[in-house]
Amino acid sequence: MIQGMTPLAGPDRAELDLVEVLQALGDPVRLQIVRVLAATDGPIACHEIPIPVAKSTGSHHLKVLREAGVVSAEVDGTRKYHTLRRADLDERFPGLLDSVLGD
Amino acid sequence: MIQGMTPLAGPDRAELDLVEVLQALGDPVRLQIVRVLAATDGPIACHEIPIPVAKSTGSHHLKVLREAGVVSAEVDGTRKYHTLRRADLDERFPGLLDSVLGD
Repeated sequence: MIQGMTPLAGPDRAELDLVEVLQALGDPVRLQIVRVLAATDGPIACHEIPIPVAKSTGSHHLKVLREAGVVSAEVDGTRKYHTLRRADLDERFPGLLDSVLGD
Repeated sequence: MIQGMTPLAGPDRAELDLVEVLQALGDPVRLQIVRVLAATDGPIACHEIPIPVAKSTGSHHLKVLREAGVVSAEVDGTRKYHTLRRADLDERFPGLLDSVLGD
């Protein structure tokens, strides 16, 4: 969490569901978002994520990822910042993220 | 392949697509099928896979898994036999199957 930002709701680590995570990852745009976040150290603003879709579509994909617990999101005014929940995913589903990012 | 059986079409190893595999795995019934096949040495007939759905639904799920390349299928008369494509998946997406089965 970043000082002064408001976190958006997402599942706790214990609530992460493998099927929901797989569904969230099973989309080419969402997979691309995850790869960008994985290559970034720290939160990244929506508009800084290079994805070839309309802004509303990108927001939808980020929401799917957040609700599945793949990313966390924090709001600062009108901007949302996203972070890959790598530690949570690695703890709950060891090897999954690495295998997906390794392709 | 089993002697005397007719294999059904599925993607070659090189054609396996990560997004399609994740989509195929991202369903509770299909994940259960994969777990049963992973625990079985060799092909298993449809009616021997314990899943809590109608036969037609089970057939649909097995078709999704086959078309994504997660399982292979062979026909012997009226019976279909399924096998997890573990070697192909491990080669193309190292660690993915283990992480999914480990949950």
